[in-house]
Amino acid sequence: MQLQNDLILRAAKGEQVERVPVWLMRQAGRVLPEYRAVRAKTKNFIEFVKSPELAAEVTVQPVDILGVDAAIIFSDILVIPEAMGLPYQMIETKGPWFENTIQTKQDIEKLNVCDGSELKYVTDAISLTKKELNNRVPLIGFCGAPFTILAYMIEGSGSKTFSKAKKFLYTQPQLAHALLEKITASSINYLKAQVAAGANLIQIFDSWAGVLSPQQYSEFSLHYISAICDAITEVPKIVFAKDAHYALPDIAKTKCNVIGLDWTMDAEQAKNTIAGKKTLQGNADPCLLYADYETIKIETEKMLDKFGKQNYIANLGHGLYPDLEKEKVKHFVRVIKNYKY
Amino acid sequence: MQLQNDLILRAAKGEQVERVPVWLMRQAGRVLPEYRAVRAKTKNFIEFVKSPELAAEVTVQPVDILGVDAAIIFSDILVIPEAMGLPYQMIETKGPWFENTIQTKQDIEKLNVCDGSELKYVTDAISLTKKELNNRVPLIGFCGAPFTILAYMIEGSGSKTFSKAKKFLYTQPQLAHALLEKITASSINYLKAQVAAGANLIQIFDSWAGVLSPQQYSEFSLHYISAICDAITEVPKIVFAKDAHYALPDIAKTKCNVIGLDWTMDAEQAKNTIAGKKTLQGNADPCLLYADYETIKIETEKMLDKFGKQNYIANLGHGLYPDLEKEKVKHFVRVIKNYKY
Repeated sequence: MQLQNDLILRAAKGEQVERVPVWLMRQAGRVLPEYRAVRAKTKNFIEFVKSPELAAEVTVQPVDILGVDAAIIFSDILVIPEAMGLPYQMIETKGPWFENTIQTKQDIEKLNVCDGSELKYVTDAISLTKKELNNRVPLIGFCGAPFTILAYMIEGSGSKTFSKAKKFLYTQPQLAHALLEKITASSINYLKAQVAAGANLIQIFDSWAGVLSPQQYSEFSLHYISAICDAITEVPKIVFAKDAHYALPDIAKTKCNVIGLDWTMDAEQAKNTIAGKKTLQGNADPCLLYADYETIKIETEKMLDKFGKQNYIANLGHGLYPDLEKEKVKHFVRVIKNYKY
Repeated sequence: MQLQNDLILRAAKGEQVERVPVWLMRQAGRVLPEYRAVRAKTKNFIEFVKSPELAAEVTVQPVDILGVDAAIIFSDILVIPEAMGLPYQMIETKGPWFENTIQTKQDIEKLNVCDGSELKYVTDAISLTKKELNNRVPLIGFCGAPFTILAYMIEGSGSKTFSKAKKFLYTQPQLAHALLEKITASSINYLKAQVAAGANLIQIFDSWAGVLSPQQYSEFSLHYISAICDAITEVPKIVFAKDAHYALPDIAKTKCNVIGLDWTMDAEQAKNTIAGKKTLQGNADPCLLYADYETIKIETEKMLDKFGKQNYIANLGHGLYPDLEKEKVKHFVRVIKNYKY
């Protein structure tokens, strides 16, 4: 059956659209009281992620409540390390924490390459979501970029500098590549399973791209993102490498369709750099949504003007913060949908 | 009396040098066992900062031990909020913490504008250091950029997003400017007192520049950095705005002499942007110093080649990490000092 609203898919493929599509990173999240009500049904975050019915429910919420043009499956990038044999906990207010981390060749050899079946709870959630959505809007699948996943597997938690992970790249480059190969193979199988279950496009989140130097980024991150983009041929691909301002020209050389920009990036400069080869996505500062309604409108319309109507998907430059007001988030979406070019 | 080694001063002013000068951010710090021995003499960090004899002792250490071409006064950017009436604690492993934060107009009105005398412990430390250095190398003074100081005063601690501080900029722009004015006036008086005590050049650290959008950066940070650069006419000024890649062309328009680059910045692109108007400083990835001696040498020489011999001060792109090996830090300095262009 045909999607009733395929604006995001057309924008991703560089086709003409009659209006700029919009979705929001972390739209299925704590900013919605409706999400928090569902979240309260499970003891911990990982149990929540592993409940396909609940995951599907919160995935659909922002489509109904915020009016966004796509759903993104509710999950976590760290399901991949877990499926590879490295479980984690999500500690409230602190973030992810791994009891075991990767340090040696043996640690890497012990890891599985996922074939996708280990993450049936995600593909089940996707199937349920597709039923619930009933072809209203596309569904976005996702994974973490291999470097970002490696960073957590070595560091064992979030970090301001990820200096342990970077030390590993500098001191054990061969082991790093062996680990990145395994993560990449797992991620490709995982994304293919998501697509088979119904994901209409996918996003690769390189959340910690910004800790790397341009040279390390090229060797240890972009190479593997590019491999994923080569392997996933069925649906359009979005690459979002936060804080990797220097990598834009090289990301534009991969087979991705869309490049996500964080809020530090200038729209016009980015458009010049990619020279019409890709669609751009982003990039309002999430903190703009703390401002009053009028300021949100003015600044959002400036952003829309700068990016232009075609080859563009409106979004934030990072995920929604949990303490933003739902009504202001709705306002942001409305301003985008009502804008007349 | 003349400085025996004025390489950094000449490089900062764009004069010819016979060799590239080098110093390291956080060179007076935990990377040196000699620092840790002095640090152990006081119960807490703030007491340490307030002890001129101890501060002078650790300031001189890296000149003797690492062979760097400048000393930088051991202190903390948060002495300014404290002197303005907002004390803080330094919690080990967690970082700075303010019991009271700035939220209202009344909070801002209650703050003092420093005349510099409140920070006599810093200017005393500078005088003692100058005696100890005995004109061997220049001494660098410093302060935080007004936005970075505001960020701590509002947030009350470090933060990944500084979303409370950014919310304040979006919701209370007039109050934000009133606060920034007071911080700027205090910082100017403080820097003038440092120069009067003997500082030969100064660095402005905008450690949290990277959380702002280009538009907010221009309005709430660069404007005040520029005011400081206008006011300090006696000595050369270095501006280091971490992660503010987009601001380089505008920083080049201020009256600073040197622009510090973090390790995500490309040397050639930066040189093109500033077009010979400023000296550049930086920008090795601190994590490079985890690598083996040969890799450190190769990568450091690549950096030196890219920046070139003139209008350049070698440094890291961020501060030294505490767990780096002292011998590798010495090696890095040696490679720079021995390099033949």
